[in-house]
Amino acid sequence: MKTTLAERTLELVRIPSVTGNEGAIADQVERVLQEGPSLRVRRKGQCVLGDLGRGHPHLILAGHLDTVPDQGGPSPAQQGDQILGLGSSDMKSGLAVMLAVAQSHALKSGRLTLVFYDGEEGPISGNGLGPLLDSEPELAQADLALLLEPTNNLIELGCQGTMHARVSIRGVAAHSARPWMGRNAIHLALPLLTRVAGLPLREVRMGEATYREVLNVTLIEGGRSRNVLPDRVTLNLNFRFAPDRTVENAEAYVRALCPETAEVEIVDAAPAAPPRLDAPLLQQFVKQVGGKVSGKQGWTDVAQFAARGVPALNFGPGLPELAHRRDERVPVDNLLTSYEVLEFFLEQMGK
Amino acid sequence: MKTTLAERTLELVRIPSVTGNEGAIADQVERVLQEGPSLRVRRKGQCVLGDLGRGHPHLILAGHLDTVPDQGGPSPAQQGDQILGLGSSDMKSGLAVMLAVAQSHALKSGRLTLVFYDGEEGPISGNGLGPLLDSEPELAQADLALLLEPTNNLIELGCQGTMHARVSIRGVAAHSARPWMGRNAIHLALPLLTRVAGLPLREVRMGEATYREVLNVTLIEGGRSRNVLPDRVTLNLNFRFAPDRTVENAEAYVRALCPETAEVEIVDAAPAAPPRLDAPLLQQFVKQVGGKVSGKQGWTDVAQFAARGVPALNFGPGLPELAHRRDERVPVDNLLTSYEVLEFFLEQMGK
Repeated sequence: MKTTLAERTLELVRIPSVTGNEGAIADQVERVLQEGPSLRVRRKGQCVLGDLGRGHPHLILAGHLDTVPDQGGPSPAQQGDQILGLGSSDMKSGLAVMLAVAQSHALKSGRLTLVFYDGEEGPISGNGLGPLLDSEPELAQADLALLLEPTNNLIELGCQGTMHARVSIRGVAAHSARPWMGRNAIHLALPLLTRVAGLPLREVRMGEATYREVLNVTLIEGGRSRNVLPDRVTLNLNFRFAPDRTVENAEAYVRALCPETAEVEIVDAAPAAPPRLDAPLLQQFVKQVGGKVSGKQGWTDVAQFAARGVPALNFGPGLPELAHRRDERVPVDNLLTSYEVLEFFLEQMGK
Repeated sequence: MKTTLAERTLELVRIPSVTGNEGAIADQVERVLQEGPSLRVRRKGQCVLGDLGRGHPHLILAGHLDTVPDQGGPSPAQQGDQILGLGSSDMKSGLAVMLAVAQSHALKSGRLTLVFYDGEEGPISGNGLGPLLDSEPELAQADLALLLEPTNNLIELGCQGTMHARVSIRGVAAHSARPWMGRNAIHLALPLLTRVAGLPLREVRMGEATYREVLNVTLIEGGRSRNVLPDRVTLNLNFRFAPDRTVENAEAYVRALCPETAEVEIVDAAPAAPPRLDAPLLQQFVKQVGGKVSGKQGWTDVAQFAARGVPALNFGPGLPELAHRRDERVPVDNLLTSYEVLEFFLEQMGK
């Protein structure tokens, strides 16, 4: 099984699938799923669905087909106990595990749905999962969704939300030799900058999961030319908010930090997802896997399942610290561990 | 004389002379000077020199031939008592007054040198005055240089220096959801920003002239992308320093404001010029013109004369508040006032 998983991962890594170009890898995933004897396979655009069994408990395994752009890292290859190449950790190793689970005979009762989708690494507007879930209302009845995002086989519950606010502060231009004729917009931004830089990290504990809420100025740009008092400065505030806030609450918090005269535009917002330790199948999975359980600090598609009422968590073989890096790779041992955890869970699921 | 001055100004405004394209206007100025019966005229590149008389007192009248780029303002025209058009105030009205003075017979003793030069509105590296003064060492023996920059016929003594420092502060990039893995460069710039924004305006009185020393952040740019903790922020500090500081002293002051870890590059520096009220011919001019005397808040080529030991001041017919503006214009009455002041001064100069 270890060899099968390694070969499948390598095969998928060898199919380029930068966001927007998921056709070839979707074709290949569809072909592999068709080989499964009793699998019901459907293609929707560049998404592929595979179903086994019926009824409840209903488990979804989900993974995105796309990768971030190529950064010129090493060619796809197995090197000792590692698979190298773009997408190896994020998250073609997860897709390989999903395909292997589909061909196992572990499911004894209930239903397993595999969801392969496109557009996860780009803007949320191009993410294929949301429209897919909306077009398949029965998926919203699932008891648990596992996203095989890279977590190094640790459980990462829920996820934090993210919000980008573009804040513009206006001044009045003047010759820089006569600043009393104007108002320096960059200097006017100081109270906001001071407030943001001074915010303490807020730690939110929800059951076994801890989230660390943070807010940063990630971009700043101001001024017209060296000799002119700046009449405008624009900042990007990125708020990574804990699951005890809604998007609306997060927006109110960000707006309250900004000076009244600032223009504040929320340019992007994705909700957080609470850990959902109330869900029985999720509890069962956490109990079976054991080990360190943490809150997902970044945003993942767990939030899209959560928004539709499906308890979800992140659990996958990839190494999160190598995601989006030129030297991306995945240990073959991780593939087997993931597979065995999922196989055992499926066997136990209906009991 | 009023009509002559108005017509000459309009003629010069009609010859485009944006920095770098001063050939045509230099030709015309040279032609007009050649008409003066006893004038010794020389052309050096795009600079034109005209000399009358010999010995001392030696007065220089100086003006730049170039203008800032066209901003699509009104075409050159006389409208009632005003001349409209690019360069009308800054400083073709001053050039017209210089040409009229050259053709007057006001000089009774001593020497008058007219200096028309190129490249004043661009970077100091392209300014024609410095090389010209260096190639004509006897000009450094002059008793007074008047720059006919727009001052609305008020005397503006000396000038402040200007310095641009590019300050880069480095942080450590990280995912914006995990800022504790990095250091936010924009947040690290806060102590510097706070210090600069809190600096009081320093008023320096030197004789009758007052200078208001100011320092501003005029440009800021930082961050790589919305989701990444910024690893760098770059600021432009513009220091307009009073004539009681040297360039070296100004640089030390700017560097002392910056954090020790910042990279500070002085990208431009032009010295200040003290008011030189010790110079007898300057005293005589100030006494004759009377009225409000102030320190020049901006930087002008007075500093280039001062650096070579020539007492200099700013006095010209243009309106300073309309310089570099689309709606630039000059009142015809101002031309006559300038001319009469200079004619009378020349008549009295040798006495």
